[in-house]
Amino acid sequence: MSTKWVYAFREGSGKMRDLLGGKGAGAAEMTRAGLPVPPGFTITTEACNAYYASGERFPDGMWEQAMAALRELERETGKKLGDPNNPLLVSVRSGARISMPGMMDTVLNLGLNEDTLKGLIARTNNPRFGYDAYRRFIQMFGKIVLDIDATKFEHILDARKQKVGAQLDTDLSAEDLKIVAEEFKELVRKETGQEFPSDPYEQLRLAIQAVFRSWNSPRAITYREFNKIPHNLGTAVNVQTMVFGNMGSDSGTGVAFTRDPNTGENVLYGEYLPNAQGEDVVAGIRTPHPIAAMAQEWPSVYQEFKRYAELLERHYRDMQDLEFTVENGKLYMLQTRSGKRSAIAAVKIAVDMVNEGLITREEAVQRVEPGQVEQLLHRQIDPRAQVHVIARGLNASPGAASGKVVFDADRAVEWSKNGEKVILVRPETSPDDVHGMIVAQGILTARGGATSHAAVVARSIGKPCVAGTETVKIDLDRRQFASNGVVINEGDVISINGSTGEVMEGAVPMIEPELTPELQALLGYADAIRRLQVWANADYPRDAEIARRNGAQGIGLCRTEHMFFETERLPIMQEMILARDDATRQAALDRLLVFQKNDFVGIFRVMDGLPVVIRLLDPPLHEFLPDYEELLVQVTEAHARGETSPEIERKEALLKEVAAMREANPMLGLRGCRLGLLFPQINAMQVRAILQAAIEVSREGISVHPEIMIPLVGHVNELKMVREQLEKVAEEVMAEAQTRIPYKFGTMIEVPRAALTADEVARYAEFFSFGTNDLTQMTFGISRDDAEGKFLLQYVERKILPTNPFQVLDQTGVGKLMKLAVEAGRATRPDIELGICGEHGGEPSSVAFCHRLGLNYVSASPFRVPVARLAAAQAVLAEPVETGF
Amino acid sequence: MSTKWVYAFREGSGKMRDLLGGKGAGAAEMTRAGLPVPPGFTITTEACNAYYASGERFPDGMWEQAMAALRELERETGKKLGDPNNPLLVSVRSGARISMPGMMDTVLNLGLNEDTLKGLIARTNNPRFGYDAYRRFIQMFGKIVLDIDATKFEHILDARKQKVGAQLDTDLSAEDLKIVAEEFKELVRKETGQEFPSDPYEQLRLAIQAVFRSWNSPRAITYREFNKIPHNLGTAVNVQTMVFGNMGSDSGTGVAFTRDPNTGENVLYGEYLPNAQGEDVVAGIRTPHPIAAMAQEWPSVYQEFKRYAELLERHYRDMQDLEFTVENGKLYMLQTRSGKRSAIAAVKIAVDMVNEGLITREEAVQRVEPGQVEQLLHRQIDPRAQVHVIARGLNASPGAASGKVVFDADRAVEWSKNGEKVILVRPETSPDDVHGMIVAQGILTARGGATSHAAVVARSIGKPCVAGTETVKIDLDRRQFASNGVVINEGDVISINGSTGEVMEGAVPMIEPELTPELQALLGYADAIRRLQVWANADYPRDAEIARRNGAQGIGLCRTEHMFFETERLPIMQEMILARDDATRQAALDRLLVFQKNDFVGIFRVMDGLPVVIRLLDPPLHEFLPDYEELLVQVTEAHARGETSPEIERKEALLKEVAAMREANPMLGLRGCRLGLLFPQINAMQVRAILQAAIEVSREGISVHPEIMIPLVGHVNELKMVREQLEKVAEEVMAEAQTRIPYKFGTMIEVPRAALTADEVARYAEFFSFGTNDLTQMTFGISRDDAEGKFLLQYVERKILPTNPFQVLDQTGVGKLMKLAVEAGRATRPDIELGICGEHGGEPSSVAFCHRLGLNYVSASPFRVPVARLAAAQAVLAEPVETGF
Repeated sequence: MSTKWVYAFREGSGKMRDLLGGKGAGAAEMTRAGLPVPPGFTITTEACNAYYASGERFPDGMWEQAMAALRELERETGKKLGDPNNPLLVSVRSGARISMPGMMDTVLNLGLNEDTLKGLIARTNNPRFGYDAYRRFIQMFGKIVLDIDATKFEHILDARKQKVGAQLDTDLSAEDLKIVAEEFKELVRKETGQEFPSDPYEQLRLAIQAVFRSWNSPRAITYREFNKIPHNLGTAVNVQTMVFGNMGSDSGTGVAFTRDPNTGENVLYGEYLPNAQGEDVVAGIRTPHPIAAMAQEWPSVYQEFKRYAELLERHYRDMQDLEFTVENGKLYMLQTRSGKRSAIAAVKIAVDMVNEGLITREEAVQRVEPGQVEQLLHRQIDPRAQVHVIARGLNASPGAASGKVVFDADRAVEWSKNGEKVILVRPETSPDDVHGMIVAQGILTARGGATSHAAVVARSIGKPCVAGTETVKIDLDRRQFASNGVVINEGDVISINGSTGEVMEGAVPMIEPELTPELQALLGYADAIRRLQVWANADYPRDAEIARRNGAQGIGLCRTEHMFFETERLPIMQEMILARDDATRQAALDRLLVFQKNDFVGIFRVMDGLPVVIRLLDPPLHEFLPDYEELLVQVTEAHARGETSPEIERKEALLKEVAAMREANPMLGLRGCRLGLLFPQINAMQVRAILQAAIEVSREGISVHPEIMIPLVGHVNELKMVREQLEKVAEEVMAEAQTRIPYKFGTMIEVPRAALTADEVARYAEFFSFGTNDLTQMTFGISRDDAEGKFLLQYVERKILPTNPFQVLDQTGVGKLMKLAVEAGRATRPDIELGICGEHGGEPSSVAFCHRLGLNYVSASPFRVPVARLAAAQAVLAEPVETGF
Repeated sequence: MSTKWVYAFREGSGKMRDLLGGKGAGAAEMTRAGLPVPPGFTITTEACNAYYASGERFPDGMWEQAMAALRELERETGKKLGDPNNPLLVSVRSGARISMPGMMDTVLNLGLNEDTLKGLIARTNNPRFGYDAYRRFIQMFGKIVLDIDATKFEHILDARKQKVGAQLDTDLSAEDLKIVAEEFKELVRKETGQEFPSDPYEQLRLAIQAVFRSWNSPRAITYREFNKIPHNLGTAVNVQTMVFGNMGSDSGTGVAFTRDPNTGENVLYGEYLPNAQGEDVVAGIRTPHPIAAMAQEWPSVYQEFKRYAELLERHYRDMQDLEFTVENGKLYMLQTRSGKRSAIAAVKIAVDMVNEGLITREEAVQRVEPGQVEQLLHRQIDPRAQVHVIARGLNASPGAASGKVVFDADRAVEWSKNGEKVILVRPETSPDDVHGMIVAQGILTARGGATSHAAVVARSIGKPCVAGTETVKIDLDRRQFASNGVVINEGDVISINGSTGEVMEGAVPMIEPELTPELQALLGYADAIRRLQVWANADYPRDAEIARRNGAQGIGLCRTEHMFFETERLPIMQEMILARDDATRQAALDRLLVFQKNDFVGIFRVMDGLPVVIRLLDPPLHEFLPDYEELLVQVTEAHARGETSPEIERKEALLKEVAAMREANPMLGLRGCRLGLLFPQINAMQVRAILQAAIEVSREGISVHPEIMIPLVGHVNELKMVREQLEKVAEEVMAEAQTRIPYKFGTMIEVPRAALTADEVARYAEFFSFGTNDLTQMTFGISRDDAEGKFLLQYVERKILPTNPFQVLDQTGVGKLMKLAVEAGRATRPDIELGICGEHGGEPSSVAFCHRLGLNYVSASPFRVPVARLAAAQAVLAEPVETGF
């Protein structure tokens, strides 16, 4: 029995990928599913290998089997290859198991020659179409099969267009195209020394050989070597009948989705164009009809199409994107694939399909990208809107906003009191701007990166922010800014997109965020699947509320420093820092205690029953003092002008204080627990405030679980000493109140040394929280503030780094440290609570990594909690299935 | 046969430590060695355990055996316990196997009572001595044996001193002391309700019990628990005859070394005092005689003593520090121990003893501290000098210097041209001061830490430097500085000690450094033992010469940036940085190339035959530009005064440039290979200079081995891309010259991530050099510049950190990263060359760690190369002995 080298589409199936290649198996599967696919056949990958094994000859029987399959096509279609009256035209394309660059692309319209062309023109009554098809065939065949430099064909076409004054290919007439085809054939003659093959069988033979040869093209070999793909897989060859939608008024072509890709509604969605082919739809010369109109125009075709759409959706168990052609009243399905869809649609379709019994909850969870969930939680610019982008900066805090430009925080407050929506535009922001940021719709800065003040505050208050927009040149005196030639005055309306970093002129239409019932259902499925808890980073009760609403199971990071930047508190903080004696310092601390306690009371009330991790003061104290350079300039100016006054003297004194506290590298300076060891009173006040607040709310019947986090530990002794001191304070407060509150002490793992010595650190830590922002900075030796504006983006563009490690956790380097710390921490203290509170806690691939590491929770910004819930569930579903025996 | 509970000293030996405790075994060993030790006996540790086992009773036979041993003492000494005419007095002390706090100290003069006191006075003819001995006995016995609060005795003594107007105890007369003794006995009566025990046997029984009881004192138990010492070891009790040197003119006491502890010369060195006891020598009331005088005064005693000294030195195989007493013409050796010695003496004694056949070369190498070798290599302040310290700063660069104070570099040059020796005193230094630093004897700065410009440059040019001397307030206008109330004007002489950080008024006597023949011999022994190579960090040919003279086997770090700070080059460097177009930049680089090439030519010539690792440009470019703040002040002043000029305009423009290049954390910013990726021309110029220089000297017949080091790699792709680019340049230069030079590419491992991913990095690195300065900064998250002045010293003082990790390598944290990197690097590339070039490369414990890690070499500053040679040999000798079978 001779080998079977050729399979008709109806003989194969989706499972025969190795033998038939991806395309052949796909066509076979569609045919199996009952789809009217234009008939065709596949020459197997084994034939390709046999071709090479026998010195580049078709194996015995292959051509004969192909001819038999061709006869079958002719029978099915009623057309014949080379028939001048009713010619069969076919496409020929390669199809390996894995698609790869360097392999042969498609040759369409094979079978055309001077004779069959006449038949085609006669049947379509469209000479332009006929000649265009013919010149395209010669061009494709010439390039792909005959190896002629493609630019030579382009030159001929361009020369013709220039000659007749045509702008586009479509401006060329039938006559022009006829001339082009002749010139193409002349080119082939010159390049190959032979006539362009007019025999369709010769065309087919050459095309099949070309596919086989393309398997060993240098590009394909290089690609396989680089990607470690074996060289002996071989490629299949697909030969498929061409169909045409421009055969008359009972022909047409269209595209459709089985559900609405914008809303997810379960209705056919798409458009078609009678007497046209795909190209016409794309060219936009005629307006297509909505798919529903087909029900009137071609009722039976519509019903048939609708049936196929439903069948395909059920077969592939997903919303499909369909291409079809109607040729003389006969419907052909050309392609089906999973349809792209909007975020809203993705969620709705997944949940609907669960309700329809089409897919499981697990599948639904896998059908939605976590990034799509994030989109749904911020106001977005309507994707259909026309926008005029005038600048691009860093996407520093997600969401979109429109409003009138203001250049200072006071004016932002003033205008917004009058009901205006404003965008605060600043060179960069400082604590003095926070009151303006709170009332603004969004923030735009010219300088600063993703950890700049503007970015950090914007994210924490949930406002969109575009930062480090270098083309924006602000002129504060004239109260205007210019960017890329556009001048925007104060009061002009702009829009910003904090998710993309775009700045636009004028107002743009927005889509409001919504936690739809479908999204809630989907997240419900995710919750039932995931093992990793999702907590949130929240500094204020309002953040905690959003976090809880979004499903957070705890607060993983409550930073206490932002509290001290608030307008009424900053002067007290400064008093405390500049105090010359303990009494003055303690008095200031006592006043701050009242504020701190109330902050915590608010958060504890919201988080009733859930843990709240509070990080003690972390930043260097000079961040709370006036800017050194501003003082220097003011004092220098006063001196140069010979001015003197008590105010200037005060500034001189302050300048000296601030100068003494300056640091060369503040990121690595006197901050975190180092502060606590040098100035224990501040930490003591904070712990007192935490426990007093906890006691107060617990008396209201609220269940409170404070966890006190000591930052920037690098050596176990730091933690030991700070903890011992603060435990005393905690016990004192509880003794005063004659009550007990369950609380924990733990530390942030953000210094590489802490991770490396986690076995020691765990002796004094009931929990570890990976502070991957700083951990990434120190592990890479990269200051994020400095790098993002200067070299980091270039690093990512030039692929020096695969991704920005501040957005996507670096699993190879930073992740290795985390793994060491998890193992060592658990070895010392098996029940240690492990979490992550860096920005990575809301990034899907990082969440998956944390799941694999076996952390107890990730803590994300409140708005990214749903993202993390979904990502954590997907991480479970991505686990290799365990096989028991 | 009953258990033997008691051993006379002559019955035991040094090996019976478990049974006799440390002191008992020591006394036995000395006795065995033929030493006339005052006779005594030891009650065993087993007796102590038996005492507890039987409910705190002496075990059967113990007391009887002790009495028998006592009789033996009486026979040997001719004295009797309790004999009013010739009383035997003894000391009683504890002696566990391991000495520990909380255990009983010594009770001296046991056996004294009203009767025996009289005998003592009669025999010494010294009532004051007698009463003093008596009151001391009561005081010690009362405190230690009877558990009476020691301060109560002190109060009585103080009251008496106050009453008679005495300043010191020695001002009290015999009569006073008699009264004190009475009052002490009264105190004992009151506190215990009983008379002070006058029966010497009762005294002895109680003292022995007290020793046993002290084994289970709370302090001793806590100590054993903390140090994991078993509780069942028990303590021994030592009872030893008292001898007195103040029994008349045929008695005396003295101390001596078997060799001169200052020079190491092989002569007896010491002093003695006739008719005196130890206390008298210490009190300095009478001037002792040199030991040589004893040869005349007591020839036979002297000969005997000399014989014992030689015997002891041979027995212990080390220079001994001896204490002796002559009682009525009989010599007693009270103590022998290894003598402390100066650095010079340590080296000379060790080498002499090798030559005398007393010790092996290995032992000689172990006898000298590496720190002592370092001392010998710098000019030192004569330890005998009287100095007036006016300030203390950071010991930033070792060695000592005296000179006239100058406050600017130009004056330093001017004065030194006139033959003056000067000390350059600056608030802090900058590249503008380097010409002054080079001519100065030493540098003193008010600000800056161990990595400040002053410190780094001073170390690299081998000048003493004291930095960050906070009490020094410099007034540049008045040309003076004040510190701790002392005002020093320009031209006044001061001295600085860069090894200790001290600043002294006036000139002080110095000891010049010397690579003595003995030191060379010792280092020769070390070289034969060590496996770790010792290379040096050297930026200039003059450093390389010192390095080679000191035995360096290569240059492990040649930094190229200091070269660009030199006066004539800095403007060209600035031109290059500020160039607006490639042509201008290239022109500047071409001029720098000439300088660079000559730098390398000089170094290669010196290092003929040895490898030279050259690090490409590392610091951020803004370090080469004028200081931002100075420019800001100048421009602000000009504006405030309404001044304008081309010079001011130039400064304004420069200010903008400098402002744009500023960084929040320059340590973690745009530097190292990041610069090379953004501005490849600089690296290309450097590699061109290296290879051109190598080709030039190789044509002179010199063997040259350049190794090109790419700094601050964190991700393998950084190294890969920089290396690919530079390899092209290297090949180009060699093709131009039609010759080949063997060279290597490698990287510094100074970013934690590089260590964590060393398996990947090693794919492109032929060598790793651990840059432990930066690696420590990043692993700890500590900026050294900021920390050393602010919290790091406090961290070490408060024992939060065991040592300053920038001086002593942190083996637990940083060392763990190094270990990971060594293993991963060798796994990828088994023949990878591994070294360390941080400051730790010259620190002995860090050198030992590098040896254990299996590095190929350490690279130290040229002056510390001998230190590292010795430390590397000691590391070999500290290895556990392998036992084969």
